[in-house]
Amino acid sequence: MHDIALIGAGRIGKIHAANLAANPRLRLTRVVDPFPDAAAAIAAHYDARVSTIEEALADPAIAGVVVASSTDTHLPYSLAAAEAGKAIFCEKPLDQDLAAARESAARFAALKARLFLAFNRRFDPNFAALQARLAGGAVGTLETLHIISHDPAPPPVDYVKISGGIFKDMVIHDFDMARWLLGEDVTEIFASASVLVDPAIGEAGDADTAKTILRTASGRLCVISSSRRSGYGYDQRIEAFGSKGMIRAQNQLETTVETWGENGAAADRFQNFFLDRYAVAYAREAEHFADILDGKTTPLVDFRDGVAALALAEAAARSARTGERVLL
Amino acid sequence: MHDIALIGAGRIGKIHAANLAANPRLRLTRVVDPFPDAAAAIAAHYDARVSTIEEALADPAIAGVVVASSTDTHLPYSLAAAEAGKAIFCEKPLDQDLAAARESAARFAALKARLFLAFNRRFDPNFAALQARLAGGAVGTLETLHIISHDPAPPPVDYVKISGGIFKDMVIHDFDMARWLLGEDVTEIFASASVLVDPAIGEAGDADTAKTILRTASGRLCVISSSRRSGYGYDQRIEAFGSKGMIRAQNQLETTVETWGENGAAADRFQNFFLDRYAVAYAREAEHFADILDGKTTPLVDFRDGVAALALAEAAARSARTGERVLL
Amino acid sequence: MHDIALIGAGRIGKIHAANLAANPRLRLTRVVDPFPDAAAAIAAHYDARVSTIEEALADPAIAGVVVASSTDTHLPYSLAAAEAGKAIFCEKPLDQDLAAARESAARFAALKARLFLAFNRRFDPNFAALQARLAGGAVGTLETLHIISHDPAPPPVDYVKISGGIFKDMVIHDFDMARWLLGEDVTEIFASASVLVDPAIGEAGDADTAKTILRTASGRLCVISSSRRSGYGYDQRIEAFGSKGMIRAQNQLETTVETWGENGAAADRFQNFFLDRYAVAYAREAEHFADILDGKTTPLVDFRDGVAALALAEAAARSARTGERVLL
Amino acid sequence: MHDIALIGAGRIGKIHAANLAANPRLRLTRVVDPFPDAAAAIAAHYDARVSTIEEALADPAIAGVVVASSTDTHLPYSLAAAEAGKAIFCEKPLDQDLAAARESAARFAALKARLFLAFNRRFDPNFAALQARLAGGAVGTLETLHIISHDPAPPPVDYVKISGGIFKDMVIHDFDMARWLLGEDVTEIFASASVLVDPAIGEAGDADTAKTILRTASGRLCVISSSRRSGYGYDQRIEAFGSKGMIRAQNQLETTVETWGENGAAADRFQNFFLDRYAVAYAREAEHFADILDGKTTPLVDFRDGVAALALAEAAARSARTGERVLL
Repeated sequence: MHDIALIGAGRIGKIHAANLAANPRLRLTRVVDPFPDAAAAIAAHYDARVSTIEEALADPAIAGVVVASSTDTHLPYSLAAAEAGKAIFCEKPLDQDLAAARESAARFAALKARLFLAFNRRFDPNFAALQARLAGGAVGTLETLHIISHDPAPPPVDYVKISGGIFKDMVIHDFDMARWLLGEDVTEIFASASVLVDPAIGEAGDADTAKTILRTASGRLCVISSSRRSGYGYDQRIEAFGSKGMIRAQNQLETTVETWGENGAAADRFQNFFLDRYAVAYAREAEHFADILDGKTTPLVDFRDGVAALALAEAAARSARTGERVLL
Repeated sequence: MHDIALIGAGRIGKIHAANLAANPRLRLTRVVDPFPDAAAAIAAHYDARVSTIEEALADPAIAGVVVASSTDTHLPYSLAAAEAGKAIFCEKPLDQDLAAARESAARFAALKARLFLAFNRRFDPNFAALQARLAGGAVGTLETLHIISHDPAPPPVDYVKISGGIFKDMVIHDFDMARWLLGEDVTEIFASASVLVDPAIGEAGDADTAKTILRTASGRLCVISSSRRSGYGYDQRIEAFGSKGMIRAQNQLETTVETWGENGAAADRFQNFFLDRYAVAYAREAEHFADILDGKTTPLVDFRDGVAALALAEAAARSARTGERVLL
Repeated sequence: MHDIALIGAGRIGKIHAANLAANPRLRLTRVVDPFPDAAAAIAAHYDARVSTIEEALADPAIAGVVVASSTDTHLPYSLAAAEAGKAIFCEKPLDQDLAAARESAARFAALKARLFLAFNRRFDPNFAALQARLAGGAVGTLETLHIISHDPAPPPVDYVKISGGIFKDMVIHDFDMARWLLGEDVTEIFASASVLVDPAIGEAGDADTAKTILRTASGRLCVISSSRRSGYGYDQRIEAFGSKGMIRAQNQLETTVETWGENGAAADRFQNFFLDRYAVAYAREAEHFADILDGKTTPLVDFRDGVAALALAEAAARSARTGERVLL
Repeated sequence: MHDIALIGAGRIGKIHAANLAANPRLRLTRVVDPFPDAAAAIAAHYDARVSTIEEALADPAIAGVVVASSTDTHLPYSLAAAEAGKAIFCEKPLDQDLAAARESAARFAALKARLFLAFNRRFDPNFAALQARLAGGAVGTLETLHIISHDPAPPPVDYVKISGGIFKDMVIHDFDMARWLLGEDVTEIFASASVLVDPAIGEAGDADTAKTILRTASGRLCVISSSRRSGYGYDQRIEAFGSKGMIRAQNQLETTVETWGENGAAADRFQNFFLDRYAVAYAREAEHFADILDGKTTPLVDFRDGVAALALAEAAARSARTGERVLL
């Protein structure tokens, strides 16, 4: 059993707390949050105690730290945890500032930090199966890739303003997926972004809809389709086109029930809330963290992956702004 | 080119006329119908002439006769055509009276009649592909079979009254499919029938809903599900369960278009009108008749098949009436 | 928190133990099994203690008893638990002997026993959604029902010999589903059963394949398709045909991944192990038991349901043996 | 009945000949081709006569001309037919040279030429249904569009060399679809193209794989995915994302047959040959031409559409070559 401290008692912190508690190899013992009530609620529920960050990092019993606090604290808290010799489970993104993230790289490397950057989609059973089969040659050599990631509904404009923009906040998931699946470095990127969903998002200086093309050195191509509001639910799909076929992951439905009427057959709703859609992925993240703590594996997604995804997000945002392809 | 006479200028006669005309090996030259206007309309359209049956059968140029007249005339007209040495393309069913059909058997046999009994489902590309793969061992040895055949809407009660009952009029298609796919003689039958769709059908002495179990000597089992009104369109499906898997034919949709909304994905309507659903099957029937006339093949469905299906229909009706299994 | 005793530390007992432990309203405190090692393993894992039945029933802290022992003990242990005033969560079937079950009815009734008979399919999210929508009128008035329940592979013949036969051991699940969905008492039953999978099952006096037709007073019809070995995985489907459409629950797939090759698109495997397929159902059973213990609800499936399903199983077995319809 | 002359007796010419012959409003009377044997074969089959272009255009009985000859003759033959006052059914593309096409525009306009440019996809029942529902508001306001068009196998390299390149030869279909569905002019285009299928295509100066982004003035975005060889068949799909949902057209399968085995369910092959996949579309083109000849409608796709698609193809090719977005 590894003792774990959780930093951040908000919505995503609660998810991680539940998965830590359910994992027989992990024990949540400390909860940190600027809002004492939020921390106290989780601590009480899981028999942990409310702490300051300093207390948590100073506790020699703590083996790992889950950083689920606000985005601007991901990097400093992760670094502090690394300095204290703790393994780190850090929510995405690493940071909104690529330069800052790059500056920290040497320090994390020097500390040989065990930092797991929790891009949940890599742990989704569907996408993980797709990746495994693709890597296993099920459709020959990968040529091109389509990633569709449309949210059911846009976040509040106040969130949009501090989000870092659609590419860093939302598409960053897909940049990580693209890197994972393409198996090669991205060398060029072009993005076209629009305000089609809500003018207020445009007034906030952001876009709500985008199509992005990534290109690798060998000429592999990846298209990412992004929307803050789909109109039909949470659309999370991948199609990987290879020399011998295509492999794809479809949306997850709430049930297998179909209704047949005069107008044809209707399937059930998509799983629309991201916490439902990725519930298994979050539990598998906790399991992966336990494996890291056990020394069984190294992080599937690490600091460099976080920096690389951020670099793509920044390049895409630049391309969308300038109308020019960006070389990486 | 084989000259063909069409007997019967009603709805199904028109379909056969169009397919005869479209087939480069067949030429519709004579049309017979008690209603001269109906015959004249088809004859004019396809450059044929209106005839009496006697004229058509006496014409040495006529190679084949399509019997698409009312059910009670199928047997006498087919027999007359056989006596005249013509090949016969006879609409289902052979007759409503099993005893009458059986009595004619010797005469048809003595004449070595080339009688093709046109059960359209055998010529449907989906069911034909299913049969071919099943026979080719795609799912090992056949064990059991499910046939679903639900009409979109019930016929008028006046038709029901002269239809011969649900088993002889409608389920007879499925008895033929069952015989074709089971590959063994049916030895037992049990049917349970209800009036659930329209009380007037019950008052007419018929049922509108039925489930039937067929059993062969080796213990293979077949379930047939029948309804005069589905509430969701024309449901024509088969599932064949074998020792190594299952093969099934699904419903045909009007297009491949899907609409995704908040409640999930909806496929397009089923092809609901039997003339649309089985359009290709009817064209293939004409092609098969041309093959028979060319001497390339013998009828895929012949007189004995027609008698056998009728025998099953009569047995099923008896079982439904008495509540007892009928041995064949 | 309700203290629970588990009787039976075998495969299904382990499942229930895990779900009891995961449920925040339940606490597994005692484990009973004739094999002390099996009981000890579970007890150690969940911080419970190994007990005799007498100890467990005598413990006033125990609020509920989970009976997951061998089938022949379901009835006596449930009765003993009822005498001790405990709520009961009893695995299916109630018993193999209909007469014995009926004899106990008065005693259970006199004790006002809170007995929950755990037919897992009622708690499957897919079947539960189907039932709710059907009951809500999504497809009008129910007319007929198809239940397909084919196992991936047959059990060992030694198990078959003591199983009570395919109808009491396996199809009993479907009899319960039929009763739940039909919404009316079954008045007639006809079954045809074969040995197609393994001759050894026939030599053991049982069948491995069956088709059964149930009929209600108003003429609703239900077909159940049963096989001990499908050849293609665990096939668990229901189609409910109503006056305004059809609603069905399809098989659950392991992932949403599809592979497209030259021969078309292939979906992923079915969830084939019943403990995977019904994992959520088992967790929901524990939740339902907690609701019963809290007094929030009465058992969704109770003693009378268990007797009724057993009566159908016995009637079906008789029909298959005699070839005659059985009236109930 | 309108008399029609066919220019071009190759593969696509044969298709059009068959559809002209099958259409009750059209009559194929003249066939023109530099290879007399090819022309003679079609003429003999449909009771037409072999002609020179001059003869065909001079024949006052000829109402329309189908131009299905080699691409470099589309424009001059169409112009000659227009000068002769004939209605024109011209195969795609209009020409490989945008400047040449633009130069002819004034002449075609002055002649008030009735030119129908036969982009077959617009007549596919699936895509046509998608367009009609989209235009009818089935998914609200269109925001973005995905068009996938992957061929089963690449053409011979000798064809590639004279094809005009992947954008003018193949993607031009999708540019026309995009224009049709977007409902707004395209103002920007970016394409990235690769040689992933066959190095010989690269040596011939062409690409075999491409992803293209189109953008309209209001910010609507369209992605086109192109491949000369899919590895899994003929992939022809469209997804249209609107403010209230998504509507898509899926691939057409050869039959509705599915095979279920241990690894899950497999659907049937895609319709892989374009003449099969678009058989109905070709017949509907002939029907549309008959409507034009009857004066019932104007061409759904006309000269300007042909020029516009060619302009997009040329811009896409330039973008792929330079790596820069092209403004239109």
